[in-house]
Amino acid sequence: MATPVKVYGPAMSTAVSRVLACLLEKNVDFQLVPVNLSKGEQKKPDFRKIQPFSQVPAFEDEGICLFESRAICRYICEKYTDKGNKGLYGTNPVARASIDQWLEAEGQSFNPPSSVLVFQLAFAPRMKIKQDQVVIKQNEEKLSKVLGIYEKRLGETRFLAGDEFSLADLSHLPNTQYLVTTSGRGELFTSRKNVGRWWNEISSRDSWKKVVDMQNKGA
Amino acid sequence: MATPVKVYGPAMSTAVSRVLACLLEKNVDFQLVPVNLSKGEQKKPDFRKIQPFSQVPAFEDEGICLFESRAICRYICEKYTDKGNKGLYGTNPVARASIDQWLEAEGQSFNPPSSVLVFQLAFAPRMKIKQDQVVIKQNEEKLSKVLGIYEKRLGETRFLAGDEFSLADLSHLPNTQYLVTTSGRGELFTSRKNVGRWWNEISSRDSWKKVVDMQNKGA
Repeated sequence: MATPVKVYGPAMSTAVSRVLACLLEKNVDFQLVPVNLSKGEQKKPDFRKIQPFSQVPAFEDEGICLFESRAICRYICEKYTDKGNKGLYGTNPVARASIDQWLEAEGQSFNPPSSVLVFQLAFAPRMKIKQDQVVIKQNEEKLSKVLGIYEKRLGETRFLAGDEFSLADLSHLPNTQYLVTTSGRGELFTSRKNVGRWWNEISSRDSWKKVVDMQNKGA
Repeated sequence: MATPVKVYGPAMSTAVSRVLACLLEKNVDFQLVPVNLSKGEQKKPDFRKIQPFSQVPAFEDEGICLFESRAICRYICEKYTDKGNKGLYGTNPVARASIDQWLEAEGQSFNPPSSVLVFQLAFAPRMKIKQDQVVIKQNEEKLSKVLGIYEKRLGETRFLAGDEFSLADLSHLPNTQYLVTTSGRGELFTSRKNVGRWWNEISSRDSWKKVVDMQNKGA
């Protein structure tokens, strides 16, 4: 039996859960290898050999080691092109360009404010770090502007990159899950008709429900 | 004659110049369409139709409109696969995965501190905006950590993604150019043996020298 793909890091990490959602969509078996962040295991020399930035996830597949969750997702879609959801990264160059465009919008415009909010609202209290209300307010405003653009887009197409669910939508799941369910910021999404409809649809997928289940079980 | 590719925005914009460098590497003809940022032309309804975030660049090629510079670069490499530098985005899935990984590292780790420094050190003085010394110091420290990781990597391989120049290296040119030449932060790069060698090599490419020439001519 072939060695399954390995993902290093806890499912509760947003970047790790992005990769897990992709593997589940593509129906690729994987093994989750624990990395205890509170014990600083990501800073150990052995881990830094495969992830020089000391971040999670790291990814290993038949001797290929990769980091950066969005790059890992692209690789999974390329390598396992015939498995699971075949349209996840598009089936022609124009569809793929639209997916890349909205995946970059997620990485460059949505992620910066939303990841700050996830840290401030969901993780800082658990880590007994004082929340910074000025930072929270600034990033709510930034995220609100981005979601205003998404609202318009999602009034024209069912999903961000077009009429099919894609890697671009998937990549928004991890941060949004924390903002909606544990940070009391659901209204940012659900108060917008199209964004709310989109969030309900993408978060109801079996792949994502399995990731949330892993998070709830402390994987 | 076919309509050339259109790039909307000034060459002095770091994101615009990333796309121009890619087009020049791929030997693809293009037309640069002026967008006057100081007059707020990027906020006009017609421009927002092709760039909803009101940012530059926007890109148009045979009816396909795209935004996000790194997504545009990927599309150019895919569409014009047989033109110019054929290895720019890799010629096999493993090479491409390594390029995607370092292109994401640029977008997620290098760009956040370096773009803040470019704004504070190069653009704020021209715009008569007061520089924030605390922000400058914080982001120099962040960038320094990233460059420490690059120094190690570039001691193992000639370029970031391997032994060939790629989109991953190209994507670092715009911010680094401003930091080295107009912001007095060259030492961050040149004081590191491998990073300095890499910068000299990638910034000496004909494609990039042409972009800098366009910037100097106020294009």
